[in-house]
Amino acid sequence: MQMTFVIFLELLPAKNGEEPTMQFLLEVVEILTSYIRKTFDRSTKVLDFHHPHQLLEGIEGFNLELSDQPESLEQILVDCRDTLKYGVRTGHPRFFNQLSTGLDIVGLAGEWLTSTANTNMFTYEIAPVFVLMEQLTLKKMREIVGWPDGEGDGIFSPGGAISNMYSVMIARYKFFPEVKTKGMAAAPRLVLFTSEHSHYSIKKASAALGFGTENLILLNTDERGRVIPDDLEAKGYVPLFVTATAGTTVYGAFDPINEIADICEKYNMWLHVDGAWGGGLLMSRKHRHKLNGVERANSVTWNPHKMMGVPLMCLFHFPAPHYTTSGLLQGCNSMCAGYLFQPDKQYDVTYDTGDKAIQCGRHVDIFKFWLMWKAKGTVGFEQHIDKCLDLSAYLYNKIKNREGFKMVFKGEPQHTNVCFWYIPPSLRSLPDGEERRQRLHKVAPKIKAMMMESGTTMVGYQPQGDKVNFFRMVISNPAATRSDIDFLVEEIERLGHDL
Amino acid sequence: MQMTFVIFLELLPAKNGEEPTMQFLLEVVEILTSYIRKTFDRSTKVLDFHHPHQLLEGIEGFNLELSDQPESLEQILVDCRDTLKYGVRTGHPRFFNQLSTGLDIVGLAGEWLTSTANTNMFTYEIAPVFVLMEQLTLKKMREIVGWPDGEGDGIFSPGGAISNMYSVMIARYKFFPEVKTKGMAAAPRLVLFTSEHSHYSIKKASAALGFGTENLILLNTDERGRVIPDDLEAKGYVPLFVTATAGTTVYGAFDPINEIADICEKYNMWLHVDGAWGGGLLMSRKHRHKLNGVERANSVTWNPHKMMGVPLMCLFHFPAPHYTTSGLLQGCNSMCAGYLFQPDKQYDVTYDTGDKAIQCGRHVDIFKFWLMWKAKGTVGFEQHIDKCLDLSAYLYNKIKNREGFKMVFKGEPQHTNVCFWYIPPSLRSLPDGEERRQRLHKVAPKIKAMMMESGTTMVGYQPQGDKVNFFRMVISNPAATRSDIDFLVEEIERLGHDL
Repeated sequence: MQMTFVIFLELLPAKNGEEPTMQFLLEVVEILTSYIRKTFDRSTKVLDFHHPHQLLEGIEGFNLELSDQPESLEQILVDCRDTLKYGVRTGHPRFFNQLSTGLDIVGLAGEWLTSTANTNMFTYEIAPVFVLMEQLTLKKMREIVGWPDGEGDGIFSPGGAISNMYSVMIARYKFFPEVKTKGMAAAPRLVLFTSEHSHYSIKKASAALGFGTENLILLNTDERGRVIPDDLEAKGYVPLFVTATAGTTVYGAFDPINEIADICEKYNMWLHVDGAWGGGLLMSRKHRHKLNGVERANSVTWNPHKMMGVPLMCLFHFPAPHYTTSGLLQGCNSMCAGYLFQPDKQYDVTYDTGDKAIQCGRHVDIFKFWLMWKAKGTVGFEQHIDKCLDLSAYLYNKIKNREGFKMVFKGEPQHTNVCFWYIPPSLRSLPDGEERRQRLHKVAPKIKAMMMESGTTMVGYQPQGDKVNFFRMVISNPAATRSDIDFLVEEIERLGHDL
Repeated sequence: MQMTFVIFLELLPAKNGEEPTMQFLLEVVEILTSYIRKTFDRSTKVLDFHHPHQLLEGIEGFNLELSDQPESLEQILVDCRDTLKYGVRTGHPRFFNQLSTGLDIVGLAGEWLTSTANTNMFTYEIAPVFVLMEQLTLKKMREIVGWPDGEGDGIFSPGGAISNMYSVMIARYKFFPEVKTKGMAAAPRLVLFTSEHSHYSIKKASAALGFGTENLILLNTDERGRVIPDDLEAKGYVPLFVTATAGTTVYGAFDPINEIADICEKYNMWLHVDGAWGGGLLMSRKHRHKLNGVERANSVTWNPHKMMGVPLMCLFHFPAPHYTTSGLLQGCNSMCAGYLFQPDKQYDVTYDTGDKAIQCGRHVDIFKFWLMWKAKGTVGFEQHIDKCLDLSAYLYNKIKNREGFKMVFKGEPQHTNVCFWYIPPSLRSLPDGEERRQRLHKVAPKIKAMMMESGTTMVGYQPQGDKVNFFRMVISNPAATRSDIDFLVEEIERLGHDL
């Protein structure tokens, strides 16, 4: 290898730095493409698990400690290889552990370009193309939500949690604008509602924004995890805000948006649809009916990095047009810093969107998504989503009556979430009761631990309410096929048989 | 080109997708490396400016609109080229427009790898290596802040604004933990203090978190933009929190931390040091005295993507050890979602740090920074910072007595911020007064507009208080040399001479 003894000081912007720079970058790309090849190869492991103390002690010379003196670029390349080696292949066809899985090649190319452009979304001045891409993409997505002519506003945010926080902030600003200047003391006791199955970010928002978690009322759900709208009406207090979840994290349940919207209209409450996980279904003519009523929402969260396979992070938040035409997002968050948002620039400064955000600098998350949309077309996203839902129906049908498997809730899942217990032979004859519950609670963690040690596949588990630990299978990985589903089922049986 | 007519469906995970995938990625890399070469070449423009309507209409076939049907990969490559062509070269040696400039090659390689690994920081389970890198790097930075043995806690956040928001939240949780559950109604009227020159994110935080912007007291500053500590003591209310800015955005001023810390101790207030811009100086033995007293802070914000040249975004937030050993960050933000943070995993779950964040998913921002630190060593960062400050001293000495230039504040700048007016010959003989002020106010915007049209260099301007528009030159770009500073000065004279 020619890189030996070259150090970073010889790279650009150094004089004559062009050749070593190109050589270094091409060697990095060689490492990355080799990793990508292996990621899609089912004969490789999903992960090569090690405990924290093992990695901290240093395995085969992989030293995580930082030092005062520079390392050679040759060592830097070795560090890159090791970092990938001891990581998790989230693009592997048998990685099902999170809502975001898969490695989209065009999206990846978009990220590489974004890093190379290395700019910031706050003004048109330094991100002209990306700012326009964001506006056009947001408009397209608002059309898909069902708002007339895609009218309205919106912003990219660093994740669904922050996006949900935006919704609560904007709702508060709409009804009690004086809170911005005078604080929560200027408003009566305000109450937020959400499903007991909703994402914990709503709770984080209620704590952070000064409402207090006790003023977040958790609504009861039916057996399948959907909010019961009547339950909303029965509660008291000064109601401000309701979250309808479109695709809950564990069950994949869709709350009945239209029924909730009726109640919100009656009591003049803000309706937020958290479609972080389920928003992608809007792209599918076959499945979008599960979000019927979404066009009545006052704001929507939608994460393309989940169901649409866009690399992390990529998240939209839109308030509805009838609020945003009045400049609500801007009004809520703007502070008009003179050093960033000069009104006397030579171009149309309405394209400087930074002051709408609670962030100052904002990472460019749009390009990978825009590029994927170009490459796939709307129809490409639709095909991907339909395929994932078909695969989850295949899994559901395969295990619903299979010996040793028991579904957590009845009926075909609304989303790709398939929730089930695996019951080892030793537990099958035990009567229902506390002993069986306690033993069953330990099964999923044990299987998961063995799965990670063997590195063959990864799937999540958790308890929910009074239900003991169960597996939650989710499918968003474009690389997954029926054979991978078969593999997962057989692997669970293999690992769990003797428990 | 062989890519013609290949579309995304032929890429991995498609059968036989390996060859087109590798070919596609290598063509993307070819586009990126060609862009990188040009970025460092002073004969290329910093930008090729177009107005929003021009880009929206489509220039030379560059079409930003999204469509239902897929484009060929050949077209995708053209889109990538066009995106870079109409963007801004933030790594160009003559780009001085923002606090974050330059393109670090090792950092860039780190970002390419991060995108390829495409994982999420919330648990050790899916980001084992990155989680450990974050812990080790945070510890190293706490040592540099001056906290004994690097004890304490910390988290990466998506930008300085969110990081500053964390500080306010944690301070509130420390003194009024019941606000988390009961809301702001459970606390008395709380007041925050910050410099009138501080970053607007403090104001955004006071609005978002329910304090109200009227309860953020702006402290007077001296002529050079530093807080006058006596002014803090004179105010009334129930004081909670003080931000000392280490490196203000416009003047680059460092507030006197020790004096402010004395007052905070006296009144039992939380002291936050916002070192988003100036924190980097801690790496320099020559300049770190400007942050003397930082080790007395209760929390610190520090952005390596600014002064340390790390690609966007890269931001740390640390609360001090005497607070974090009591689990304050965790206590403030945790909601213990069972589906993500299962307590019964097979590894040491204290490494699952996600619940400390207000985000759920968190982008991997650590790797590029860790890799740069490996490649440069602590001494490499120090050299970079010392060089930038030397360059700004060079600029200051060059223009302080130059005809047609006037400094905004007296004396050598504390940071790399050099603030000055350029006064065209036509204004030089005008007496001080409203006409001169009004005409001078228009000079910087006009020069900046011409600068962008000609694409030769970029530098920021703004008004501040009663001072009309002036240029704020900042140097964080490792590619910049004295010749680039000379160029900037001459370019301002060339463009502004006839105004």
